[in-house]
Amino acid sequence: MTQYVVGVDFGTLSGRAVVVRVADGEEVGTAVHEYRHGAVERTLPATGEALPPHWALQMPSDWVDVLRHAVPAALAAAGVDPAAVVGIATDFTACTFLPVLADGTPLCSLPDLVRVPHAYPKLWKHHAAQGQADRINALAAARSEPWIQRYGGKLSSEWQLAKALQVLEEAPDVYARAERFIEAADWIVWQLAGVETRNACTAGYKGVFQDGSYPSKAYLEALHPSFGDWVSKVDGPLSPLGGRAGSLTEEAAGWTGLPAGIAVAVGNVDAHVTAPAAKAVEPGQLVAIMGTSTCHVMSGAELADVPGMCGVVQDGIIPGLWGFEAGQSGVGDIFAWYVETLLSGGLTHDELTRRAAAQRPGEHGLVALDWHNGNRSVLVDHGLSGVVVGQTLATRPEDVYRALIEATAFGTRTIIEALETSGVPVVEFIAAGGLLKNRFLMQIYADVLRRPISVIGSEQGPALGSAMHAAVAAGAYPDIRAAAEAMGRVERNVYTPDPAAADVYDRLYAEYVTLHDYFGRGTNDVLHRLRALREEVSR
Amino acid sequence: MTQYVVGVDFGTLSGRAVVVRVADGEEVGTAVHEYRHGAVERTLPATGEALPPHWALQMPSDWVDVLRHAVPAALAAAGVDPAAVVGIATDFTACTFLPVLADGTPLCSLPDLVRVPHAYPKLWKHHAAQGQADRINALAAARSEPWIQRYGGKLSSEWQLAKALQVLEEAPDVYARAERFIEAADWIVWQLAGVETRNACTAGYKGVFQDGSYPSKAYLEALHPSFGDWVSKVDGPLSPLGGRAGSLTEEAAGWTGLPAGIAVAVGNVDAHVTAPAAKAVEPGQLVAIMGTSTCHVMSGAELADVPGMCGVVQDGIIPGLWGFEAGQSGVGDIFAWYVETLLSGGLTHDELTRRAAAQRPGEHGLVALDWHNGNRSVLVDHGLSGVVVGQTLATRPEDVYRALIEATAFGTRTIIEALETSGVPVVEFIAAGGLLKNRFLMQIYADVLRRPISVIGSEQGPALGSAMHAAVAAGAYPDIRAAAEAMGRVERNVYTPDPAAADVYDRLYAEYVTLHDYFGRGTNDVLHRLRALREEVSR
Repeated sequence: MTQYVVGVDFGTLSGRAVVVRVADGEEVGTAVHEYRHGAVERTLPATGEALPPHWALQMPSDWVDVLRHAVPAALAAAGVDPAAVVGIATDFTACTFLPVLADGTPLCSLPDLVRVPHAYPKLWKHHAAQGQADRINALAAARSEPWIQRYGGKLSSEWQLAKALQVLEEAPDVYARAERFIEAADWIVWQLAGVETRNACTAGYKGVFQDGSYPSKAYLEALHPSFGDWVSKVDGPLSPLGGRAGSLTEEAAGWTGLPAGIAVAVGNVDAHVTAPAAKAVEPGQLVAIMGTSTCHVMSGAELADVPGMCGVVQDGIIPGLWGFEAGQSGVGDIFAWYVETLLSGGLTHDELTRRAAAQRPGEHGLVALDWHNGNRSVLVDHGLSGVVVGQTLATRPEDVYRALIEATAFGTRTIIEALETSGVPVVEFIAAGGLLKNRFLMQIYADVLRRPISVIGSEQGPALGSAMHAAVAAGAYPDIRAAAEAMGRVERNVYTPDPAAADVYDRLYAEYVTLHDYFGRGTNDVLHRLRALREEVSR
Repeated sequence: MTQYVVGVDFGTLSGRAVVVRVADGEEVGTAVHEYRHGAVERTLPATGEALPPHWALQMPSDWVDVLRHAVPAALAAAGVDPAAVVGIATDFTACTFLPVLADGTPLCSLPDLVRVPHAYPKLWKHHAAQGQADRINALAAARSEPWIQRYGGKLSSEWQLAKALQVLEEAPDVYARAERFIEAADWIVWQLAGVETRNACTAGYKGVFQDGSYPSKAYLEALHPSFGDWVSKVDGPLSPLGGRAGSLTEEAAGWTGLPAGIAVAVGNVDAHVTAPAAKAVEPGQLVAIMGTSTCHVMSGAELADVPGMCGVVQDGIIPGLWGFEAGQSGVGDIFAWYVETLLSGGLTHDELTRRAAAQRPGEHGLVALDWHNGNRSVLVDHGLSGVVVGQTLATRPEDVYRALIEATAFGTRTIIEALETSGVPVVEFIAAGGLLKNRFLMQIYADVLRRPISVIGSEQGPALGSAMHAAVAAGAYPDIRAAAEAMGRVERNVYTPDPAAADVYDRLYAEYVTLHDYFGRGTNDVLHRLRALREEVSR
């Protein structure tokens, strides 16, 4: 009987299940289930009370509903006999993080805590713990904590430590009641397999597990006298990606329609699981997941200090290799802002693209800095903002549109050069994500990077990547490399650089670098001063 | 009998006549006549042949038609007996410049030259002599010609020397046939009074007459071996502004319906003649004529070297004083570009103003450089372009609109500070021109300049100013000061600075100055490189 696996990708607003043939990775059926509560950002469903600014929560029941609805629907769409499915694996947004009892029960499901916002899972984009993050970073710098350099010198307010410290400080009872804190990526596996596991990826990237340990008790107690027990709430053995967490429970079999006892893989993260889906399992194969923002994931053979990484984690993407992650905090978001907000919808993306595509590189006379949503890599500075240089009375809307696209390509080049000058070679650039559809943009990236661009061969890369990990967990392949070889999908060198365009872009990139360092490295700190003034006068 | 005078303002596309009561400056009648040929920029009317790029010509017959139509119409509208009119005066765009025979006949009216573009008047915005201007400036710098510093170190391609040298080089026969070259400002007076005169204003600002002489024969011959006779084509006694050029001829009386023999005043320039119309006749009273661009005119008691002036000319605005002229090459043009081109008309000026006016200073988090049409003062560099700093995903169209308005106010402040730090005090700021209608913009200027703004009391300042010069020429007042006292119109301190807003703008202005010097004084020459690249790839 032909074997299949199921991959489930848990996103911000919905979950997607895909049924994949083990032998060759063919995606034979898919289904999406929208979360009933989406991202909970305004009011708590249980009470209708308004949440404070920058909060973002999620409902565990919505995640289970994906298992109950999307998995059976994908099976039905595939026309596959559930008995042919040998394993299931999941990937999740991260850091999406929740307090639970020792048996995995979410605190928010306890009757006396259902009205308490801090008892709920905090979604990755919960941004209300910036104060905690600032103190975490200042203390790490003051104490020269060795792990901080693995994260570009700064932990994000989105990550575990900041979110947990916020709970401790604002709801100490909830913190005390939490016997464990756990990534949703691991919690959903607990629901499937009935056992708690911790995956190496989120532990490293979001939990600051480095060189065999979490931050020290001395550091944690210096942050807050009651934070010294933190590690006891998250520790435990780490499981390798693609490892078998356990077997599908009877209850989960009932939800999904899958056979009880099949392999359940260790948890994983949406960006990271995309790498093997695009056959990027060797050192130097960089996968850029390009959407509203861009996430860059790449494995390297050796540890290296690379400025401005989101994280460098052993076994973080592919077991046995160091995983490097970088990011651009605004990409598609910037184009959407320009079209929808600044131009107020007077021109469409298609029309702007059509006009911009008729230009030669350099013709618009502009260069921009792509920091409209701050800069993640390599400056790690969310207080920065965008700059556009060179406008004249002849500048047209499509000129700025093209300059903004080019600026994001320059931002990507900055990250690649940071890796390479730090001794981490980038041997292949593979694109994934929603921006793949824009062929004009992809060609600009090839020209700016002066390297060919390969393209993932699936429109549901994360779910496919999860399915591959399910196949490994089920023993169908000895490791993720073998699974990627058989099941991954990539089209090599779909875009190749035009040398003449690349020559022009080399000159524009030199201008970008000069402006990048002038505005981004403190020569002229005007962007921070403008932001501070804005906040001051808006109070 | 109550006495009247007529002022005629010759603009780029039309001429305006106004009938003014001598005693108090009351404007009793006005009429506008559109030029039949407007600005001749595409094809020569006589042949239909295309003109080369950047050319702009004009037709002398169109100017005479203003005398024939607008003056009688204004008299009729006023209901004034022509016999009550004691004088007429004119002002003109400059440098608008034409080759003529010794009797004033335009070369373009000669049958054998009617098909020759170089025989026609070159309008102020003829920009095809940049090559000549570059050589004029390079040679002046190389020879350390003393007069070049009176013009911010650079003569404009719009001015007499560049335009004449272009004629000599491209149409030497036309140059040879021209017995005189003359500003339209003086040519129209010649038509009215039948005598050739030369006014001190255009001779200084446009003809490089300084310290009693034009550029030397040695300099001119070094520019071109046949250019040594140039001064013989423009020289002659200079007449003071407000002087009587002569008496209205029978022919001109027939055109205008005015009595023959009345006073005709010496020629003048539209911006400069506006100063006395706004009662700005004393040292330090700066008049800003704010429209698509802004022209700043102010008299000073003493000569001073001020960086980036368009010109510093003895008796250039008010007889007996030094006239300082500065300029911003893009103001209203920038707002129009932003609304019509960049936003593609999706939002109106009114709507953007309404939204922007609801903000506090500093709230948008932006600072811009207003160089979308280059920078006239104080950098004298038309190769510069605009910069916008600080955009985020929350930036709205009205934010940028307001930042652009503020940037032009910062540009004005830069000019005022250049005057004052050079020892030329600015004691009053008086606004004139079309942007007066925008009360929101005017308040921003008051706040940015941290000084009250007075406002001219006429919507036709140049024509009123001409009428006042007619009254002086007719002997109704002993000098322009007395005429301005009786006939000028200004509302003092219509806008006063809000101290809290001014404090914020001081901080934003400091950012503007830093960026101004970084991008404008060569620290980072990116704007020139972007322009050069644009031209290179567009070839």
